[in-house]
Amino acid sequence: MDHSSTPIGADYTLIREKVQQAIGILQETGIDLWLTFVRETSAGGDPVLPFIYGHDATWQSAFILTRSGERIAIMGHFDAENARRSGAYTEVITYHEAFSPPLLEVLKRLNPQQIALNYSVNDPHADGLSHGLYQLLIGYLKDTPFAARFVSAETLINKLRGRKTTTEIERIETAIATTFALYQQTFDYVQVGMTEQQIGQFMHARVQALGLTTSWESASCPAVNSGPDTPIGHAGPTDVVVQPGHLLHFDFGVRQNDYCSDIQRVLYFLRPGESAAPAPVQQGFATVVRAIQAAVDAMKPGVLGKAVDAVARQVITAAGYPEFKYATGHHLGRACHDGGGILGPEWERYGDTPNRPLEVGHVYTVEPGLFVPGYGYMGIEEDVVITEQGAVFLGQPQTELILK
Amino acid sequence: MDHSSTPIGADYTLIREKVQQAIGILQETGIDLWLTFVRETSAGGDPVLPFIYGHDATWQSAFILTRSGERIAIMGHFDAENARRSGAYTEVITYHEAFSPPLLEVLKRLNPQQIALNYSVNDPHADGLSHGLYQLLIGYLKDTPFAARFVSAETLINKLRGRKTTTEIERIETAIATTFALYQQTFDYVQVGMTEQQIGQFMHARVQALGLTTSWESASCPAVNSGPDTPIGHAGPTDVVVQPGHLLHFDFGVRQNDYCSDIQRVLYFLRPGESAAPAPVQQGFATVVRAIQAAVDAMKPGVLGKAVDAVARQVITAAGYPEFKYATGHHLGRACHDGGGILGPEWERYGDTPNRPLEVGHVYTVEPGLFVPGYGYMGIEEDVVITEQGAVFLGQPQTELILK
Repeated sequence: MDHSSTPIGADYTLIREKVQQAIGILQETGIDLWLTFVRETSAGGDPVLPFIYGHDATWQSAFILTRSGERIAIMGHFDAENARRSGAYTEVITYHEAFSPPLLEVLKRLNPQQIALNYSVNDPHADGLSHGLYQLLIGYLKDTPFAARFVSAETLINKLRGRKTTTEIERIETAIATTFALYQQTFDYVQVGMTEQQIGQFMHARVQALGLTTSWESASCPAVNSGPDTPIGHAGPTDVVVQPGHLLHFDFGVRQNDYCSDIQRVLYFLRPGESAAPAPVQQGFATVVRAIQAAVDAMKPGVLGKAVDAVARQVITAAGYPEFKYATGHHLGRACHDGGGILGPEWERYGDTPNRPLEVGHVYTVEPGLFVPGYGYMGIEEDVVITEQGAVFLGQPQTELILK
Repeated sequence: MDHSSTPIGADYTLIREKVQQAIGILQETGIDLWLTFVRETSAGGDPVLPFIYGHDATWQSAFILTRSGERIAIMGHFDAENARRSGAYTEVITYHEAFSPPLLEVLKRLNPQQIALNYSVNDPHADGLSHGLYQLLIGYLKDTPFAARFVSAETLINKLRGRKTTTEIERIETAIATTFALYQQTFDYVQVGMTEQQIGQFMHARVQALGLTTSWESASCPAVNSGPDTPIGHAGPTDVVVQPGHLLHFDFGVRQNDYCSDIQRVLYFLRPGESAAPAPVQQGFATVVRAIQAAVDAMKPGVLGKAVDAVARQVITAAGYPEFKYATGHHLGRACHDGGGILGPEWERYGDTPNRPLEVGHVYTVEPGLFVPGYGYMGIEEDVVITEQGAVFLGQPQTELILK
């Protein structure tokens, strides 16, 4: 977890909101008890922890929420003060030497018929329980009926992360607004003759000046891809030089107040004598814009992610371009790739995630792309929120190719 | 993982050093193959990844090192460029839709008799494999003999993290030197009448001005504890006001070039008419200094962590103070609590970690403490490196109580 932007005193209002929301989801899904079991989270914490606690936990700790509304934290005595301050837990139980006695006491008292744990083959954000901690838990519970009552918390966590509260959507909108402002500064700055690295460094300096961090690891955020000969993907900017006739493609976002944006934009550098982009570039741009709009039109509550993906994919391939080898979109929130369902095809590496319905309050990226031979990568990415009436763009989408 | 300080272009020299070291440890421990299996590490990555890769991995990825020296990365096509650039892998295999075919191909080709995976009940830093990924791996290998060949990589990772290279020790020394400089500025700054929070904010501003981050989450780094009535532990500074007759205790460190320091210091604020600290404060200080020196004298290669802990604990209790309810020390490195063995007692929550021998190149904290009734917490923490001849202080230890 990135704690560099955590202020002294975490954001307890949002934590109380999400803990309350979790109890509602337990009631909706009929799960008796949700157990988040962690230790030494500075080494790599459970991604759900910022929603329900907001700090690192050092010793073995349990965060227990139940369908009937109990909110119990079991923590080492040095850590417990943070749980008390949060106001999110009605009971904070501390220990000095051994974690298992208070855990057993609580489970016996509550006697849950299902115990949801944070493991998932599909979703990294619902898979925060390490295998060693799982083994340790099995050991602690070996003479009890409880180990036989484990279920995956995947659905619960997907709903909790996916259904953004108003506070969460406002924070994402703020991050998007900042991203647009930084993009505008960058578009004004870029010129023929600059390297991708130089442009990336300009953007990093702007992000740092605002006291923010990038949405994903800074080495590849922004991605800056100029022309047809630069490697596309998650690697960072190279020493490739921007030249007339290049598409200049960006993938970039910021994390602001713990929430992320994720936006792609594309520019074209006119060659001497050109007053507009050449036909293949124009056609590629129009195709991507059309694919995005078609996907967004299809995004209604209840529609499956793979159906949205198929719509965007079909626009690209029907126009004669090869299929893009990634998903049309993903959840966006506290993480840039925020887990839960994906707007993607049923490929092995996506597991079951393309089969999830869209829900009100979900925030997704929409990011089909294609390659324009001889010019470069044409990718645009917009962020949208799902409402009862369908998807709504968060910020102004790119509908005109920027010319320099 | 905190990527905020990752420069563009990770530190490939250190990664190549550690990958080479890992192959030596495979030979030493007789394990055929080490498999680090990850996905979407921005959601909470395997803590070993910065040592052997240095970036986030998005799609399912495998980093395979073998006793016979093979170094193979299997990655999504968008991620692979980073693995190539690192120069740490002799073979980078890419895929688009499905991860399991190349994984199976490599395992069949190498036919390892043991496959070490990153799970551990004892050590969070060797427990980076999530339970869902473990289940997924079992599924991929279900018709092969390989799932029956899994072993824990705990020992391997403990040795890899624990045995610092010269580069790593130099980085820790740099972080410690910075910490001492920031402590000196803080000691000059603090005065009666300031709150703990005010002092914490001063230190945060100094850390930020250097472009660094704190060793652990900033909300509780520094810990600032003034007088007898403030909560001790991992919570952050409070609005308690520094007063004459208070012990002012700090626990603080910085992360610099990805490596950490962890140092505690203590001051006493003289009351009107006092020219020295009162006898109970002096006695408490002398006892802690004596406990640290006794522990450091006992720290030789081959000695078990619990034996070191017993020495320090005995000095404290023999002087009539209650036993401190934590371990005498822990590994220090890329993480502040760097995993592996602990200088601690055999309490349940420490698992098997007190039973590990000290080795040359290990870096530990030494941090016994006690409470001086009426005055506050008396804790000092030093960092030491183990050499053939024994433990050596990294930086000047505190042997005089600072008076203000």
